Amino acid sequence: MTKGIAIVSGGMDSVTMAHWLQQYGYDLHLISFDYGQRHVKELQFAEECARDLGVQWDLIDVTGVGKFLTGSALTDDVVVPDGHYTWDTMKQTVVPNRNMIMLSIATGIAVAEECQLVATAVHTGDHRIYPDCRPAFIASINETAQIATEEFSEPDFEIWAPFVTISKAGIAQLGANLGVDWLKTWSCYKGGEIHCGTCGTCYERREAMKLAGIDDPTPYINNTEVYEEQA
Amino acid sequence: MTKGIAIVSGGMDSVTMAHWLQQYGYDLHLISFDYGQRHVKELQFAEECARDLGVQWDLIDVTGVGKFLTGSALTDDVVVPDGHYTWDTMKQTVVPNRNMIMLSIATGIAVAEECQLVATAVHTGDHRIYPDCRPAFIASINETAQIATEEFSEPDFEIWAPFVTISKAGIAQLGANLGVDWLKTWSCYKGGEIHCGTCGTCYERREAMKLAGIDDPTPYINNTEVYEEQA
Repeated sequence: MTKGIAIVSGGMDSVTMAHWLQQYGYDLHLISFDYGQRHVKELQFAEECARDLGVQWDLIDVTGVGKFLTGSALTDDVVVPDGHYTWDTMKQTVVPNRNMIMLSIATGIAVAEECQLVATAVHTGDHRIYPDCRPAFIASINETAQIATEEFSEPDFEIWAPFVTISKAGIAQLGANLGVDWLKTWSCYKGGEIHCGTCGTCYERREAMKLAGIDDPTPYINNTEVYEEQA
Repeated sequence: MTKGIAIVSGGMDSVTMAHWLQQYGYDLHLISFDYGQRHVKELQFAEECARDLGVQWDLIDVTGVGKFLTGSALTDDVVVPDGHYTWDTMKQTVVPNRNMIMLSIATGIAVAEECQLVATAVHTGDHRIYPDCRPAFIASINETAQIATEEFSEPDFEIWAPFVTISKAGIAQLGANLGVDWLKTWSCYKGGEIHCGTCGTCYERREAMKLAGIDDPTPYINNTEVYEEQA
């Protein structure tokens, strides 16, 4: 059975990926990162995902790194922007080089645990702004990680981003087919008791469900079609 | 003035690099990493280097990562091997993917602080065992980091390993020319009051000084020619 590290945030993309990889035959170890996010609510969902799958979950504390990566609404006191992501609002939510840092650490753990795979759930919706979610980045870091760990990693070691060429709606469709319980996934950046429905990630969640033709079971504080007004 | 992040451990290589880059005109921010080394003595020397250069120094706490990268004599309770490094003894001191992790984090900080450079002091003596110290790795991670931070990093951003093609003896020669005070650098993995003189890094320090024709001022517990006996 192939051993793999899956980076899981607790959102719908990474939870779907974990379910899918397990059905695909991988023996998974789920890891999440605490880089000083304002709200750690999503991490509870990552842990619950591991429990449901019956696999190991660990939280990697990188708060000592996060405090040097300032300027992000995810980690600072900047107001979380509402509505559809734009260049300006998404720039506020960028943690510089976050994926490269997480994938480098995951690769180190993969070597220590003799895993053949590190998996990340980046998708086409992330590409517009985040350069470290694009196919060119994934291809490049896969090569770098193989060179960095030559002779130490497993012979077929790879960093894999299975969703890098599909949309969030495509992931939602896959998750629905797999029977993923959406109520066990968390997207909202605001971290309230229920999803706000209006921040950038809530918007994308709602849009993906709608495009995939899924009856979204998520309770939202505000589920008006706010995003259409902002088009 | 070009701003740069320099990764400095407090050893002779990285301290020499920091002095050299400053003379070369860089406005430096020195960073060190605490990944759970047994002994943090070398970090005091990194801090002192920054004080001497009159620049900022920060310690990045990655102990939350280090505990997942097990199997290393640097972080575990494995006995530090004496004598010249061999494949077996060096493997014991490998922290998996350490350089990729440190360079990824340094790149994130470089973006946050609008720096054009991340510098690391890896050299040819590291190549034999550590794959993440070789020129092919440096070239690859430089490209990956540029792709990962496109549109966010400075236009000419680079990861630079100026010593990747020279030996530790060459660095010692450069340091001597720059007037680096070797007593303000630390190599020993055993972390006593003075250098042990017999662990792998002490051996390499002594050998480099000797090959460079430098009168080594370092006090050692044992400065017999132990390494020649083990040839």
